Amino acid sequence: MYTLYYSKGSSALAPHILALELGVDLALVEVPIPQGAHQAPEFLARNPKGRVPLLDTPEGSLTENPAILEYLAARHPQRGLLPEGHLAQARARELCAYLCAAAHIAFAHKLRGKRWAQDPVALADMQKYVPQNLTECATYLETTLPLGPWALGADYSFCDPYLYVFARWLDAAGVSIDPFPKLAAHKLAMLARPATQAALAAQEIQE
Amino acid sequence: MYTLYYSKGSSALAPHILALELGVDLALVEVPIPQGAHQAPEFLARNPKGRVPLLDTPEGSLTENPAILEYLAARHPQRGLLPEGHLAQARARELCAYLCAAAHIAFAHKLRGKRWAQDPVALADMQKYVPQNLTECATYLETTLPLGPWALGADYSFCDPYLYVFARWLDAAGVSIDPFPKLAAHKLAMLARPATQAALAAQEIQE
Repeated sequence: MYTLYYSKGSSALAPHILALELGVDLALVEVPIPQGAHQAPEFLARNPKGRVPLLDTPEGSLTENPAILEYLAARHPQRGLLPEGHLAQARARELCAYLCAAAHIAFAHKLRGKRWAQDPVALADMQKYVPQNLTECATYLETTLPLGPWALGADYSFCDPYLYVFARWLDAAGVSIDPFPKLAAHKLAMLARPATQAALAAQEIQE
Repeated sequence: MYTLYYSKGSSALAPHILALELGVDLALVEVPIPQGAHQAPEFLARNPKGRVPLLDTPEGSLTENPAILEYLAARHPQRGLLPEGHLAQARARELCAYLCAAAHIAFAHKLRGKRWAQDPVALADMQKYVPQNLTECATYLETTLPLGPWALGADYSFCDPYLYVFARWLDAAGVSIDPFPKLAAHKLAMLARPATQAALAAQEIQE
């Protein structure tokens, strides 16, 4: 039994989709960021970072998408969503690190700029470069990932829901995915999966 | 045989220290960021991200500290620097994700603000909040990590060199480590290890 703390459409969508792919027992607790619920004392007591996703597992609570996604895949290996072999696993971690430390951070300068600056001029200037920076991320991913058809190649892995969330960041920043045919095909392939559709429906959000 | 591409005092110091702990054959290639070598065509051909660390392994090249550090520990398990068990490994990945996506990013707004903004007002405002943001990171790490005495508890792991690099970010941002006694003790414990001393000497940098 797992409990996922999420905000609608946040990056917690990735472990939500993965948990449904794995068929695990999953409870959901909404922590609506637009209402500031991530900064409420009761949530900070559970996660001092004030961020989602937070995943309660039978062994303890976990934060950070790279850790949560691989943990779920490793704990439920029968679905084969953990790549096999040192290099393949390192490639998965390399992608997750890029998504969380480069791509997500590039996107976060759109709405979460106050993490790093306060001056309105600074916040506006940060927002201005978000589409360009996400375009650079998309170019990197399009030209370096196997994406054949999944992020790491022929097999769907724990990275795929995270890469799908990246496609949603592009959309939210007004960057068309069309110039990136492999990423666009990946997004469509993700949307065709029942687990993705079920997670979107459960969060009452659109693709 | 591994080849590590590094810039003096960058976060590539973490895999440098780890490789020396593991006793692997290591060649070093300096990519001096202050001289722009990370953006030179010959380096971009090897790593389109234009970042260090880059590690050439017998199986292929790897980027991103969380991927590189765990790969080295997993490939050389006889030294026991890879935690055992799903939750312990998830905790290691959780820490690495925080260091790369929260702490390193907080620090990067000091000298690498142009990744996210261009206006001089924005760059100055970003720099202004770096000490405060790194203090928040230090508070989080001090109050949530086992640090007894190593990052994850009693055993030195692949996370420890990365946590040592965090202590160097504090110093570079002018944030004293003294109010964080567990982090301060960790830094001293790292500096007492021959591998740390050898990596600092090889890069010709101070603690």
